[in-house]
Amino acid sequence: MIALRAWVLVMCVVAGSAAAGDLPPEPTTTDVYRDTTARIIGAALASDHGYQRLSELCDGIGHRLSGSKALESATQWAAAAMRRDGLENVRLQPVMVPHWERGEESAVMVQPGPQKLSMLGLGRSIGTPRGGITADVVAVSSFSELNALPVDAVRGKIVLYNVPFTSYGKTVRYRGAGANRASARGAVAALVRSVGPTSLRTPHTGNMSAYTDSFPHIPAAAVTIEDAEMMQRLLDRGRRVRVQLEMSARMRPDARSHNVIGELRGSERPEEIVVVGGHIDSWDVGQGAHDDGGGCVASMEALRLIKSLGLRPRRTLRVVLWTNEENGLKGAEAYRDSVKADIGRHVAAIETDGGMERPKGFGVKCTLTASDSTDVPRQARARARMEAIAPLLAGVGASVVDDNGGGADTGPLMKLGVPGISHHTIGEKYFEWHHTPADMLDKVDPIEFRKNIAAIAALAYVLADMPDRLDE
Amino acid sequence: MIALRAWVLVMCVVAGSAAAGDLPPEPTTTDVYRDTTARIIGAALASDHGYQRLSELCDGIGHRLSGSKALESATQWAAAAMRRDGLENVRLQPVMVPHWERGEESAVMVQPGPQKLSMLGLGRSIGTPRGGITADVVAVSSFSELNALPVDAVRGKIVLYNVPFTSYGKTVRYRGAGANRASARGAVAALVRSVGPTSLRTPHTGNMSAYTDSFPHIPAAAVTIEDAEMMQRLLDRGRRVRVQLEMSARMRPDARSHNVIGELRGSERPEEIVVVGGHIDSWDVGQGAHDDGGGCVASMEALRLIKSLGLRPRRTLRVVLWTNEENGLKGAEAYRDSVKADIGRHVAAIETDGGMERPKGFGVKCTLTASDSTDVPRQARARARMEAIAPLLAGVGASVVDDNGGGADTGPLMKLGVPGISHHTIGEKYFEWHHTPADMLDKVDPIEFRKNIAAIAALAYVLADMPDRLDE
Repeated sequence: MIALRAWVLVMCVVAGSAAAGDLPPEPTTTDVYRDTTARIIGAALASDHGYQRLSELCDGIGHRLSGSKALESATQWAAAAMRRDGLENVRLQPVMVPHWERGEESAVMVQPGPQKLSMLGLGRSIGTPRGGITADVVAVSSFSELNALPVDAVRGKIVLYNVPFTSYGKTVRYRGAGANRASARGAVAALVRSVGPTSLRTPHTGNMSAYTDSFPHIPAAAVTIEDAEMMQRLLDRGRRVRVQLEMSARMRPDARSHNVIGELRGSERPEEIVVVGGHIDSWDVGQGAHDDGGGCVASMEALRLIKSLGLRPRRTLRVVLWTNEENGLKGAEAYRDSVKADIGRHVAAIETDGGMERPKGFGVKCTLTASDSTDVPRQARARARMEAIAPLLAGVGASVVDDNGGGADTGPLMKLGVPGISHHTIGEKYFEWHHTPADMLDKVDPIEFRKNIAAIAALAYVLADMPDRLDE
Repeated sequence: MIALRAWVLVMCVVAGSAAAGDLPPEPTTTDVYRDTTARIIGAALASDHGYQRLSELCDGIGHRLSGSKALESATQWAAAAMRRDGLENVRLQPVMVPHWERGEESAVMVQPGPQKLSMLGLGRSIGTPRGGITADVVAVSSFSELNALPVDAVRGKIVLYNVPFTSYGKTVRYRGAGANRASARGAVAALVRSVGPTSLRTPHTGNMSAYTDSFPHIPAAAVTIEDAEMMQRLLDRGRRVRVQLEMSARMRPDARSHNVIGELRGSERPEEIVVVGGHIDSWDVGQGAHDDGGGCVASMEALRLIKSLGLRPRRTLRVVLWTNEENGLKGAEAYRDSVKADIGRHVAAIETDGGMERPKGFGVKCTLTASDSTDVPRQARARARMEAIAPLLAGVGASVVDDNGGGADTGPLMKLGVPGISHHTIGEKYFEWHHTPADMLDKVDPIEFRKNIAAIAALAYVLADMPDRLDE
């Protein structure tokens, strides 16, 4: 073992430099794993099994919000599938999760009009009184614009955040903090322009931040780009815009859910673990096909394919399907809590939660304990090892490595020092579908899906098998 | 007048041929109208008035199905706008129109599932009994496939026409005849894949053909591409698919509506008329921005701009906003009936009902009386005159002339011998929006809209002013 580790250290040091003297060049990671990853990638590209499995989840079960029966069906289904695949230690890890229920909801622009708006309440929002809330609309394009308005311009009004999509990170702040910020100024409800770049009257739901107790709790909903622009145009013309918002949304008592876990135990160091996973819950619209049925099934397929080829890496490969990513992260926290006593044995955690468009590569990030800041020396080593693996993934277009390794479900592990790896695609249309009724299986290209499975499986195998740990 | 007509005849004959001998070349239509059309086009491109007017219609009034209060508001609004523009003989021509009411509606795939489907009932469809119709789904991709199925495969079932969009004309047949054809085979309801090329879970409504009395009347609705493909996938996997369809749609007694008409009376031959128009009604979703608010406002703008430049063509320019194009054509028939005694005075009828994307040009068609067949000699003359005008429209990209001059509202006039002219755009996205909740003003590019107005106004002016009639 020691000799082998030393050999790989040499290999990494000389990788990319010209061979010296008469000695043949040392084999690189690429050399060592070329044949095995070629077999894995070939098997993944040859198989429709993953797409058929994703169809079972999407078409047979559908969307699966925390607290729903469908989510319980999905976790049971996933565990049964892992057992059928012959994975080891398949288990359902109990997790109590928030249970938000949308109920009936509608929004109508009653003046001018009436024109029915296309909307979706935001996760965690309270409902309105029966009969709804009817109030004038005031539109803002930023929090600072909201805060600069005179008191009377906001008090008793419905605040519309009409903020065009730039990046998800920049725009989603209005979905998160919009209700609280509007309430702080005396508003009675908040409408948020959907967080997406284009629309066919497509509302995007998603979670809002917890209500603060400093201000009244007010309901919040997403409206479409079209409806936000319509109200903006009318207001710009000096017209009075009144909206009636009615929602029966409510939080119910926490519900029992489960993370789904299965393993391919390591051949030499089974106590060391490489996690590969996605989240099994989804929003309560569409099918959660890209978000994140694809990530779940790709992770399951990675282990299934490796096992079906008779391969067993040195370390344990563990698939984790986290529950409640969308509105609570309780699954990620429960998993973290269950492993934190031995967290040093987690060698890496791969999260796939960016959809199944054409693969691009992977990000890697090693953070300082209890922080989001990069641990510079570990990051440099992990990045170098990822770069050494990347050429093996070039055939499926997944060889771009960067430092964006963060993830929602891997975040709690990363804060304990586990290197995080994030699966990346070209992300061309992901945010058109994200959290909308359109996130359906037809949006998943079956061949791109195979390529993603191939990339994830090959990377997971190498990380679990290579003599040194990723950040060593 | 005679001299002038002879001069233009010469001009048309020599157009395009090299000048002979020492004589200077005769002026062409292009030469004669270059300055005037340049003024019209320049004024159209300089003005935001049309877009603001379209915003009044779309945002201030919204969609406007036959029989709705909104449609009556829209016709009153249009007449008032024409009067404000200083048009002459502004009038509301009464028309009784069908009044179909959508009511509440839903479709749920109850097995496997439940998964809520995104749907829109088809215009003219009956409703279901209270509690809906729940039945197994059988999917077909053509009428011949339907007819080849054994009796038991269809009887008592819901037929899903899962026909991918090729062209509108080819695919819309399933929306039209789907219910009757399914009922003929014993089905209890029909679902039609939406007639559109792409989708974000976007249902497209539209009218279905009249029920035949040979078979039971069954309800019909459009489902989205996503939902049609989902059901197809499940059926392909051998799964049983059951849908509960509930609709409270019904026909109400015919309602009073109006065509809206206004004129710029001709300076020399006011009894000769060039019609320019679109349809003022729309489906009961979205805003009817492209279909056909844009065509209406562009037609109104054409006359307004010409008048505002102090121009008055030889013949009368008449804007006609037809009612009930979408589900009855009663407006087109009423207009035809009102003018048929003097139909020979209609020199041309320009219809704009293809949306307001980047302009491309115009089609022209002269048909034999009471027929859709081309009247070859008249067509040749009309086509040649359109080709002579086309260079004047090149600056806004609208110089492509073809023989596709038909239109829904101009059809009844064309059958009486009036040359029909159809406004064409590149049509890149029109059928993504068509009859959907997404046909909203934000989909209309303000600058392309100005260019379309420019092209329509310039063409209308030349047709109304040029010494000879289009098909002479």
